[in-house]
Amino acid sequence: MSQPTGDLGLIGLAVMGQNLILNAADHGYTVVAYNRTVSKVDHFMANEAKGKSIIGAHSIQELVDNLKRPRRIVLLVKAGAAVDAFIEQLLPYLEKGDIIIDGGNSHYPDTNRRYDELKAKGINFVGSGVSGGEEGARYGPSLMPGGAIEAWPHIKEIFQAISAKSDGEPCCDWVGPAGAGHYVKMVHNGIEYGDMQLICEAYDIMKRVGNFTDKEIGDVFAKWNSGVLDSFLIEITRDILKYNDTDGTPLVEKIMDSAGQKGTGKWTAINALDLGMPVTLIGEAVFARCLSSLKSERVRAAKILPGPQIAKDGVKDKQQFVDDLEQALYASKIISYAQGFMLIREAGKTYNWKLNNPAIALMWRGGCIIRSVFLAEITKAYRDEPELENLLFNSFFTEAITKAQSGWRNTIALASTQGIPTPAFSTALSFYDGYRSERLPANLLQAQRDYFGAHTFRILPESASKEMPEGQDIHVNWTGRGGNISASTYQA
Amino acid sequence: MSQPTGDLGLIGLAVMGQNLILNAADHGYTVVAYNRTVSKVDHFMANEAKGKSIIGAHSIQELVDNLKRPRRIVLLVKAGAAVDAFIEQLLPYLEKGDIIIDGGNSHYPDTNRRYDELKAKGINFVGSGVSGGEEGARYGPSLMPGGAIEAWPHIKEIFQAISAKSDGEPCCDWVGPAGAGHYVKMVHNGIEYGDMQLICEAYDIMKRVGNFTDKEIGDVFAKWNSGVLDSFLIEITRDILKYNDTDGTPLVEKIMDSAGQKGTGKWTAINALDLGMPVTLIGEAVFARCLSSLKSERVRAAKILPGPQIAKDGVKDKQQFVDDLEQALYASKIISYAQGFMLIREAGKTYNWKLNNPAIALMWRGGCIIRSVFLAEITKAYRDEPELENLLFNSFFTEAITKAQSGWRNTIALASTQGIPTPAFSTALSFYDGYRSERLPANLLQAQRDYFGAHTFRILPESASKEMPEGQDIHVNWTGRGGNISASTYQA
Repeated sequence: MSQPTGDLGLIGLAVMGQNLILNAADHGYTVVAYNRTVSKVDHFMANEAKGKSIIGAHSIQELVDNLKRPRRIVLLVKAGAAVDAFIEQLLPYLEKGDIIIDGGNSHYPDTNRRYDELKAKGINFVGSGVSGGEEGARYGPSLMPGGAIEAWPHIKEIFQAISAKSDGEPCCDWVGPAGAGHYVKMVHNGIEYGDMQLICEAYDIMKRVGNFTDKEIGDVFAKWNSGVLDSFLIEITRDILKYNDTDGTPLVEKIMDSAGQKGTGKWTAINALDLGMPVTLIGEAVFARCLSSLKSERVRAAKILPGPQIAKDGVKDKQQFVDDLEQALYASKIISYAQGFMLIREAGKTYNWKLNNPAIALMWRGGCIIRSVFLAEITKAYRDEPELENLLFNSFFTEAITKAQSGWRNTIALASTQGIPTPAFSTALSFYDGYRSERLPANLLQAQRDYFGAHTFRILPESASKEMPEGQDIHVNWTGRGGNISASTYQA
Repeated sequence: MSQPTGDLGLIGLAVMGQNLILNAADHGYTVVAYNRTVSKVDHFMANEAKGKSIIGAHSIQELVDNLKRPRRIVLLVKAGAAVDAFIEQLLPYLEKGDIIIDGGNSHYPDTNRRYDELKAKGINFVGSGVSGGEEGARYGPSLMPGGAIEAWPHIKEIFQAISAKSDGEPCCDWVGPAGAGHYVKMVHNGIEYGDMQLICEAYDIMKRVGNFTDKEIGDVFAKWNSGVLDSFLIEITRDILKYNDTDGTPLVEKIMDSAGQKGTGKWTAINALDLGMPVTLIGEAVFARCLSSLKSERVRAAKILPGPQIAKDGVKDKQQFVDDLEQALYASKIISYAQGFMLIREAGKTYNWKLNNPAIALMWRGGCIIRSVFLAEITKAYRDEPELENLLFNSFFTEAITKAQSGWRNTIALASTQGIPTPAFSTALSFYDGYRSERLPANLLQAQRDYFGAHTFRILPESASKEMPEGQDIHVNWTGRGGNISASTYQA
């Protein structure tokens, strides 16, 4: 055939795939589209793709033949076996230096594996997080590519062209090696769970304690969207609360309160447990979805388990109530992002990836589901202080969380006494109070572990002595009955 | 050689191994002891084992030769590769029908694997949880065996003889197939983390808000130990708080507040996330240990991050304060165990294990670290109502948690306003308030997911209509801009 003209190939014509292709075509790129069920290719070519710089391929061969070298092929298929299957199908047609980009929600250990396997074959593998839903994909997603650095010069231009922009800067940069891109996407998704849970708790408090109508709650979110909470999720919440069903009542009140999940938030929580980082807010957000799924048990429990009678006119000062809630939401959000970046830092250390915090914050600043003004502040904080140990130590965030103290604490005290569940707000506050505690009660925990299992403890530096020196694992015979053996091989 | 006389073989002469051997010998059994570093065998035989029905073996051959058929060999070695290594070493000497019992803290998927591999070779594998620390092992541990049911008739007598007893009943019963025994031990360990975290939070509140001395706190725990909180962990806490260093001050206050962990609590939290069960208290307990490990960050944060000034004489009514705290501790404990049994129920369904709740409660009633009067109540609840859907629905626990309402809520409101971290108390209350909510704000969450990702939602039965029928996955065009495609293959 004549010289290939395709800049990018894309396999997988569901929502995301189609929209990314249209996005790239809008930016002047020629895209070759392929789908396993080829009728979808024909339908796409006859409709959305008509008249654009898009070529329909009816086989892997045709897809590959139409691409310029090095070939750049995006996979937007179901995470898991399908990705491996398509890689297998592509390999016979590819040459060394060609690039495969997995744009699905793959679990980063799989990306690590694929990166290694393909590197051994001379193929450059990129695992890229993609966020922003249908609209993001169409007009500007957040893109988080990582993997074979050799691929970056060949995909940077097109990725940064089609990505979202924030103050002119593309929300797309090279994340790091192997599965780093998918890792950062995973953390993004976990944070998304957290942001959504916080919004839901605020809505619940306004509804059940404040007795606000959905319209009133929508107005509050509209107001908040012009303040420090200005973000995509707050904006869509405003819209959702004002969306009426055909009978004129808010549709959201008819929706089953059983949350679904695709698993990425769960991965983040599991990873936090594995790396030993207290990412409590995402953990609670995932668990809150699990609890919401136990609908029939909850309906039964509501008839059996008692709680406080919510005061009918419990909220005397509505403005104060709403302002307190805004502070609670904002402070909890700060905690969630601080925890997320703690996790990223630990991942960088553990997996030996050099991760760039301001770049990550900028990738999240626009295009993706968690996009917000808040992320501009985070970007700024990490640009100002590249070695920033914790977001909470940056003066902008220290001040914000200082200002939020009374509203945050009032809200939680109110929720606990009125019987409204606030797993995310509460865990954020407990984390804050724990993080700023020079002394936590874990000394007692260590004493208990040594008492029943001889697991040993260490002495506080200020209490060290010759008998109990600093840095030494000490076992004490707490009862005068036990042995002197410490539990080096014994695991309770 | 002459007829073998060994009833039981045991490999691994660290604390637990030695104590279990001595325990079995006390009960009239002949035990054959082996250790890879054979000098330990000699030392044991010359000291603790002297004059008892214990045979020292200096090789695997010698161990095996001394055992009656079917041979019963307990492994008490480091979980992981060591277990597989010893199994490999034993196999050439064993015959079909022989029994290997892994008494270490193995992760249940490994036990599943070993069970399958050994079954194929005609060897009966048992994975048994063992709890109770040094003293438990010596005088009566809790034992949780599971795996090859064919082994049970051959080990039941000796296991139930050496185990702890509760009102005359052995704290040992057959748990279930494959890794079920180790699974239940894992949940036990998770609950242990939860119980310990709750005690630490109570201690922290008494110290920092109540300004109690350690002696006063010890007296409170002593008093609680005669009430509903009567348990091993409360008892040892009493003892710990009264244990003074040589300078006459409480040793516990010199201990570094950085908690260690061996990983089993983390496994429970990860399993809960995998099975989709909201085991929030164990999750928070694990994360609290992670936070305590970030000691240097906390010391720095304490100088930077503000919090409330704790009132010097904040507690006007000390008795009420302590009674409220007792109720908070008790109610949170009930929640933790309710969550633990929810997890066990889900595991039974998912792994197709028939698990026996009253038996599990009885195994935990004595011998193990979490032993308590409370577990006698749980045993009773499950015996009275074998199909009990949730512990909270049993009248004893419904009444207990009803009585605890105001003390629990007061304590959490107090901690939030005074700046004391209470991750476990708070998550327990949020879970309770969530579990008893017929309607949770997850309706909004589902609307958001459909808005940005076309993930669809379902209608509440009471709001179903022809256009939006019950049980159907519905997508709505929330903005009038998006497509009508639901995200069946797209995973955000």
